[in-house]
Formats: sequence, structure tokens, C-alpha cells
Amino acid sequence: MDAIEELQGLLKKLPGMGEKSALRLSYHLIRTDESFNKALGNAIATIKEKIHPCPICGCYTEHDICSYCSDGTRDRSTICVVEEPQDVLSIASSGAYNGLFHVLGGAINPLGGIGPDNLTFPELIRRIEEGSFKEVIIATNPTEEGDTTALYIRHLLEGKDIAITRLASGLPIGGDLGYADKLTLMRSLRGRIKF
Amino acid sequence: MDAIEELQGLLKKLPGMGEKSALRLSYHLIRTDESFNKALGNAIATIKEKIHPCPICGCYTEHDICSYCSDGTRDRSTICVVEEPQDVLSIASSGAYNGLFHVLGGAINPLGGIGPDNLTFPELIRRIEEGSFKEVIIATNPTEEGDTTALYIRHLLEGKDIAITRLASGLPIGGDLGYADKLTLMRSLRGRIKF
Repeated sequence: MDAIEELQGLLKKLPGMGEKSALRLSYHLIRTDESFNKALGNAIATIKEKIHPCPICGCYTEHDICSYCSDGTRDRSTICVVEEPQDVLSIASSGAYNGLFHVLGGAINPLGGIGPDNLTFPELIRRIEEGSFKEVIIATNPTEEGDTTALYIRHLLEGKDIAITRLASGLPIGGDLGYADKLTLMRSLRGRIKF
Repeated sequence: MDAIEELQGLLKKLPGMGEKSALRLSYHLIRTDESFNKALGNAIATIKEKIHPCPICGCYTEHDICSYCSDGTRDRSTICVVEEPQDVLSIASSGAYNGLFHVLGGAINPLGGIGPDNLTFPELIRRIEEGSFKEVIIATNPTEEGDTTALYIRHLLEGKDIAITRLASGLPIGGDLGYADKLTLMRSLRGRIKF
């Protein structure tokens, strides 16, 4: 049963996948439609070739410049700063935000070895200085690291003529943007407070 | 973000995978090592080409005949009847069984449209008639369908000179009496053994 064990071993390396779930999934894939397996296998094998970070905002895209940065109908006076590329999709799909994005690539976490130098703060400052933004919405996670990062951004923007806001109500403390539902995200966008 | 959405859409079709988990997994695969993605993608795409049911017992194998049926050191006087191919691995890996197997391909479930004709009963009977088995261990699941299937096998083997046994039902090891359901407790009481 080498092929099954090989598949199980690979599946087990995925996040949240234990020994038994990996085996169950392997057996499921043996029973399922072959064309589905080919499509899924190919999608997994090629995803990294197709996707790269947008050179402007840092979110994932298949094109030279992402759909948000290249969309002329979006509000270019607001920039929303997030930790990870997937946070862009979460906020965009809430339907309550029509501005631009900036992906930091994480949050300041000295214990985890992530300092300001590892994140895209210089790019953020350059975009704000070169653009015509009136508001920065800080949408880092409501965690200690996210809060530290928000404070750091406020510090960086001191003296600049730009409103700084932070997502406030709706997000449970200690939570994660990726697991927030659309309504919670929408409310936290609408109820954002001056920071 | 078409490639991410495509990958998410495919992952979402896997059992136990919701919209958000599929998206998280997609983003994980973008961040992870490319050679891992190639290996996993290839393993998924080719698993059905590599694996087929053993023509004798019905469990999954890469070879002409599975490792259990072709293993001369296994006890050929005992046959263990299970519902699904993965049950073979569960029982074999318990280390408490060294006989042969027979996979039925499911359990009798009239409401689900699975009758005796859909399962490998004729092959089981032929193996028992042609072999030199002294015991049939019925290892169908302890469910209504599994019990019905066990009764059906007992009926099929009536009059044959072969011992018929069934896996004991009772409290799972490491379990807690307080969490056991009434039916499990009832069975473990009825099936109590001398201590």
C-alpha cells in the first residue's frame, strides 16, 4: 500500500490534518472521480507558478498588478493596511470597503523574530507620501502583535496630514481576521474609530 | 485571483472542508514549499492509476494481489469480513489479527439503495467453500446497517461447518462511563466477560 501511504504522508503535512484524517482523505480520493483528482492535483502543483505578490500592495495576484490596484473605480483616497494577503480578500468580500490595500507581510512580533524591518513599512510610507490618501485604515488583527503594529504605524505617520483609523467593534479580542464572518467585518469597518 | 478561487473551489469539494478552511489551505499552499506542492499534486492526480482493488479480497493494492492475500505467513484458516477497504488497514494495524480479509464494499442499507446484490457476498461464499477456513470474523460496523449485514452473513452460512464470530461491542479503551451512550453500555453489559 505504498502509494496510499505516500499520499497519506503528504496530506498529513497540511495544517489541521492528523494521521486518521489524512488516511480518510486518501481513501476518499481513491473512491472519487479521477478527473477531479487530476484537476485538484494540477491546481495544487501549479498554484505557486500562477500566483505572486502584487508589486504595489503585496496581495496575491495572477496579473502584473492586482485587481484592486488596477481597478480605476476604487476610492484612491483610502488605504487599508492588513497583515496577510488573505486579509485583503476577507475585507474586500465584506462589501463595505472600496479603497486600496497594503499588505505588511505580518505583524511586529519580537519574540517570533519579526521586527519592523521584516515588514513593508517603507513601501507604505512611500505610497502615502506619493499618493493622495486622506485616510489610513489599520486592519491588523486584534491581537497583541496586531495592536503593536497599529501603534507603530501611528508613530510612523505622526505629523502627516492623514486621518488614521483602526477597525474596532465586532472583532473578538484574540481572534483572527481570516475566521471573521462578513457581517462582523462589515460592522467593524463601519464602526471604525479614530486611532 | 482566479487560480486561488479555482483551488479553493476544488478543495471545498473534499469531505469536511468548508469555504473558509479551503481558502486557508489555498493560502497555505501558496506560502509553502513548491516541491511539496508538486509531490502532493502528483500523488493526488495519480492515486487512482496506482491503486486498484485486490481481485481476491477487495482491499486496495498496487500489486496484482494484495499484501495480505499473497503473504504466506498469514493464517489461512480465519477470514475477517469488513465493509470498506480502509477497515482492513484498521484491523491489520491493531496487531491482533493475522488471518485473511474480505471486503464487502459496504453494508446492507435498503433506504440508501444498497441491497445484498450490491455487495460481494457471492465471492465470500465461494472463498469459504473453496478454502479451508475454520472461522469467519464478522467485523462490520456496530451500526444498524452493520448489524443487518452481520445477520445476513450468518443466514448465508447456515449449515456450513465454520465458526462465526463478531467483534465485541462495548466501552472504548480510555473512554469514560459518563460519556458512553445507553446502547453501548447495554451491549457492554450483555457482552460482559468473566474476569
